[in-house]
Amino acid sequence: MIAVLKPNATQQQIDSITAWLRSQGLDVHISTGTQHTVLGVIGDTRNVDTELLESLEVVERVTRITEPFKSANRKFHPDDTVVDVGGVKIGGGNFQFIAGPCSVETPEQIMTVAQRVKAAGATMLRGGAFKPRTSPYDFQGLKAHGIELLCEAKKATGMAIVTEIMSIDRLPLFADVDVIQVGARNMQNFELLRELGKTQKPILLKRGLANTLKELLMSAEYIMASGNSNVILCERGIRTFETSTRNTLDLSAVPMLHEMTHLPVVVDPSHGTGHASLVPAMALAATAAGADGLIIEVHNDPPHALCDGAQSLTPDQFDKLAADVRRIREVL
Amino acid sequence: MIAVLKPNATQQQIDSITAWLRSQGLDVHISTGTQHTVLGVIGDTRNVDTELLESLEVVERVTRITEPFKSANRKFHPDDTVVDVGGVKIGGGNFQFIAGPCSVETPEQIMTVAQRVKAAGATMLRGGAFKPRTSPYDFQGLKAHGIELLCEAKKATGMAIVTEIMSIDRLPLFADVDVIQVGARNMQNFELLRELGKTQKPILLKRGLANTLKELLMSAEYIMASGNSNVILCERGIRTFETSTRNTLDLSAVPMLHEMTHLPVVVDPSHGTGHASLVPAMALAATAAGADGLIIEVHNDPPHALCDGAQSLTPDQFDKLAADVRRIREVL
Amino acid sequence: MIAVLKPNATQQQIDSITAWLRSQGLDVHISTGTQHTVLGVIGDTRNVDTELLESLEVVERVTRITEPFKSANRKFHPDDTVVDVGGVKIGGGNFQFIAGPCSVETPEQIMTVAQRVKAAGATMLRGGAFKPRTSPYDFQGLKAHGIELLCEAKKATGMAIVTEIMSIDRLPLFADVDVIQVGARNMQNFELLRELGKTQKPILLKRGLANTLKELLMSAEYIMASGNSNVILCERGIRTFETSTRNTLDLSAVPMLHEMTHLPVVVDPSHGTGHASLVPAMALAATAAGADGLIIEVHNDPPHALCDGAQSLTPDQFDKLAADVRRIREVL
Amino acid sequence: MIAVLKPNATQQQIDSITAWLRSQGLDVHISTGTQHTVLGVIGDTRNVDTELLESLEVVERVTRITEPFKSANRKFHPDDTVVDVGGVKIGGGNFQFIAGPCSVETPEQIMTVAQRVKAAGATMLRGGAFKPRTSPYDFQGLKAHGIELLCEAKKATGMAIVTEIMSIDRLPLFADVDVIQVGARNMQNFELLRELGKTQKPILLKRGLANTLKELLMSAEYIMASGNSNVILCERGIRTFETSTRNTLDLSAVPMLHEMTHLPVVVDPSHGTGHASLVPAMALAATAAGADGLIIEVHNDPPHALCDGAQSLTPDQFDKLAADVRRIREVL
Repeated sequence: MIAVLKPNATQQQIDSITAWLRSQGLDVHISTGTQHTVLGVIGDTRNVDTELLESLEVVERVTRITEPFKSANRKFHPDDTVVDVGGVKIGGGNFQFIAGPCSVETPEQIMTVAQRVKAAGATMLRGGAFKPRTSPYDFQGLKAHGIELLCEAKKATGMAIVTEIMSIDRLPLFADVDVIQVGARNMQNFELLRELGKTQKPILLKRGLANTLKELLMSAEYIMASGNSNVILCERGIRTFETSTRNTLDLSAVPMLHEMTHLPVVVDPSHGTGHASLVPAMALAATAAGADGLIIEVHNDPPHALCDGAQSLTPDQFDKLAADVRRIREVL
Repeated sequence: MIAVLKPNATQQQIDSITAWLRSQGLDVHISTGTQHTVLGVIGDTRNVDTELLESLEVVERVTRITEPFKSANRKFHPDDTVVDVGGVKIGGGNFQFIAGPCSVETPEQIMTVAQRVKAAGATMLRGGAFKPRTSPYDFQGLKAHGIELLCEAKKATGMAIVTEIMSIDRLPLFADVDVIQVGARNMQNFELLRELGKTQKPILLKRGLANTLKELLMSAEYIMASGNSNVILCERGIRTFETSTRNTLDLSAVPMLHEMTHLPVVVDPSHGTGHASLVPAMALAATAAGADGLIIEVHNDPPHALCDGAQSLTPDQFDKLAADVRRIREVL
Repeated sequence: MIAVLKPNATQQQIDSITAWLRSQGLDVHISTGTQHTVLGVIGDTRNVDTELLESLEVVERVTRITEPFKSANRKFHPDDTVVDVGGVKIGGGNFQFIAGPCSVETPEQIMTVAQRVKAAGATMLRGGAFKPRTSPYDFQGLKAHGIELLCEAKKATGMAIVTEIMSIDRLPLFADVDVIQVGARNMQNFELLRELGKTQKPILLKRGLANTLKELLMSAEYIMASGNSNVILCERGIRTFETSTRNTLDLSAVPMLHEMTHLPVVVDPSHGTGHASLVPAMALAATAAGADGLIIEVHNDPPHALCDGAQSLTPDQFDKLAADVRRIREVL
Repeated sequence: MIAVLKPNATQQQIDSITAWLRSQGLDVHISTGTQHTVLGVIGDTRNVDTELLESLEVVERVTRITEPFKSANRKFHPDDTVVDVGGVKIGGGNFQFIAGPCSVETPEQIMTVAQRVKAAGATMLRGGAFKPRTSPYDFQGLKAHGIELLCEAKKATGMAIVTEIMSIDRLPLFADVDVIQVGARNMQNFELLRELGKTQKPILLKRGLANTLKELLMSAEYIMASGNSNVILCERGIRTFETSTRNTLDLSAVPMLHEMTHLPVVVDPSHGTGHASLVPAMALAATAAGADGLIIEVHNDPPHALCDGAQSLTPDQFDKLAADVRRIREVL
């Protein structure tokens, strides 16, 4: 950690801050420049609150040299984490398709989609039971009944199921859910993350609309620091000024996260673009970028989907996409 | 609501969508342009899911004419809402200072700050007990004990107290809290909003880092649709590419929200800028822009604040600021 | 074009605006809703200034139904444009590598790199002679001499050369340049675009850091409206809040632009990410997304490159990348 | 300047980079941490290209301690710059209104507006002659004739005139213009900045839509490094995800720029918000934030303005605004 002091720092102030840092068990190297004195702080600075340090009157700026995430950090864990979802592996060279409708709507719908995406090669079935909607007047999901329908589809097809949790008090309903999804809007719902860290369920953690990769990893760290290392990261588009797509899918996040962390990284091109017509191109691109899996919205009847229909593929379109993705995977 | 159909829409498709809309109790006017057919949908379209409509293959784009928020909408409620916080009024020409430390730390700290900010004219005391921190390794607040200390300060000074809730299961701890704050990271924690709507407590709803004003009002609508109209909106800075300030304080939000809604709007220049040196200028600017109140971080000993010290004012600085704000208010 | 009138519009105001629109040769359909009157404006609205219309007191909002770009619009020109660069074709299924150093530095450097990238399959050589640098104290390029060195490399290798223009008064120096690049910072330098439209040179138009795809196409329209249809669009990353990459490479732009326009679209993953280690993954991703070409920075000695070295590949790395890209292209 | 080396840096690499830095006349302090070696580079590092340094394989990250702008930097020039515009002073406590129509349209229009805004207290008349428009089909300004009309208004009223330059080859037309405006889209048109630096005309430099304050100051530095210190900075809104306003007016830029630089800072709330109804509130806010002046669009007949009418005030509205601003100025 580097602390740049203000130009007018007095020797007494420098001594005082240096003594304080050393009292935290840290080592301090002092460089005196033409305008600024710079402190090099050495040791385990992970628990040092940079905002506190910056609040000292004598400090102009603080820069971390080592990242504040440790459990998620590839520097400390060079090998890829492979998350095991009931025998299905993701990460470390294992690639999976997670597919299904935006919302669970009816027994027929979820069963039909499950069978079709399984036939196309998907190993995990996604479907929203609790739906975060911007408007209180929009469809909010089938809730507990939606999870029941997912469980029936799981029983019938053997697929693992993935669905979103919006509040920790619903956790008991997720007993038979294989992967619990934390949505973009809850990426920094720290109480929720902490509680999920106390389970051993695989957690699919979606990047928030305005969150940096570092913040995504800090949120993973909340889960991991509570004891659960089964975290799958998901890039699903960030909010920018561009309006022709629903979000801006940041595919650079895939290779960048692979450098920063050992956790698996999947991509959701359906939410990431918001247009079904763009999903195939972006799914192939995500695959080529090195993603460990794809989350694709598939609906047997997109025009009547109760939400996000504009971005859902038909099962036929998914068949073709899955085949194309496999061909890209083969040449990588 | 306007639905622009694709250039190649057939008469049968146009008839089918028109019939469907009419079956929802809506009236439809059809305009046939040189390239596109445009449907004007008339009636109460608030419950029509635009995403569903856009997912129809024949639809190119849907534009709402009336906003989907109704309870919060000034068009339907032209008079300013005045929120009453234990006798202290905010909105409708009533301006209040909400001041206090970022985090409650010790009995002495919160009491000292409370007395100082009260003397300077603040009517509400803020202080974090549950703190949302990006890192699990940073100080997370005194939690229940923090609320106790706030309550003691309330008893001693008579000030109303404002503190943040992070999870609905802690609600019982907030019985004596006068205003419950929903932080930026929870602005779209819809389960939390819905539950807070079942209380009658004033809710201070902070704008999310990447949320539009329309989304802020939709979140207010969640609270109001559940039965609680005591919502105070708060602009606290949005996330942009600029790095010299912690966030970009969007003061245009103040007059724009006043056009869109009847709810009171306060501004938090401390989080909005992240630098104590910028707080006074931005507090005056927010006042001049028409804010109904200011939330200011004040700490008796900023360099040792356990969080966000860099943006806290000293009590002396707050004295001067409060006096300056009053002078601006007088000439408005 | 749809004009939504304010709720309180009088019949006289409605008549007056309708008459004015009809006097422009447009047809107007009037829909009267519960709250708003909506005008459907039909005809060639491309020359109607929406800002002027919105400035009328009675108008609440104006929405275009047809895009204001016509020459670049795929709706009017369904077939892909193939730009011919001295016999090398790009677009319409023709894919090209454009490679070379960020800046032309020395005769040896540019010649070495040219020979290496040609051997790897690149058909066009890029190299900056006039360099836009944020700081006036940074290296600004070899200018006219840089173009001479590029021309020598062209003579020696037969490759087409691509280099950036920063000011229209330097146009005479570009006589032997095959493709003139307009950089991101000049994407809305309309005077420059208009003048380049008077030449018949292929123009490589880079998307601005904060420009939408629609604005990119409007800038292409400036060139095309002046008479030059040889425009190649380039996605090179946009500015967002994310700091781990230099820019956020928006690969959705590739399939989205292919829907909106018939012009070829290339991707620059070097500037788009700012990190050499991310370039291969993002180049493959861009290819899989359907790009018509790639612009890659290659330097024979990256650590000593005079600018942007951090994002340059070595010739060996480029060899591997080009082979991998070709394998992706084969399976598409 | 701080250079953080990669964890695996060898002693030979450290020696080599240290020797290279010392050969540039710089002093280097070496700190060896638990994971990283950190080099503190001391001396005049303004001319050191950080990108070059970061491109070295052994370097992980480079952080500047001193800003790369020197002429514009308040650290080196603590006193406010006062720009003299034909006897009218701006900066250092001198506040000016710059008002006028978006575009110069007719002799009557510009004369009427000039007389009205002068009567209200404006000392400078603004009006666009060359207009940067996103669409080639929109009105592009009266060009040379527009400047003639401005000059006539100057002769009649004695006001200084401010108008935008879009291309350096038009400079001769600006001989009688008092302040040359560089628009947001040209903020990084470095060739233009450099040429304007060779004149002694006051330059009104508008912040680009996606440019940081540091980049704004680097662009000012281009002008100043060429010899012209008469630079007035202008905040005019940045591009964000928010859509209810045309841009997001970043008023924190005012106090922040006052800390960073000695140059005067004015604010343009008309472009900054895009809505006439928001202009008064934001003009007052900008004044309270400490702006050295305001640029306000005023049109005698806004509904017929040829561009940007939606954001123009009427002369009567400007009268009231100017009076309100003066009252705010009095209490500051």
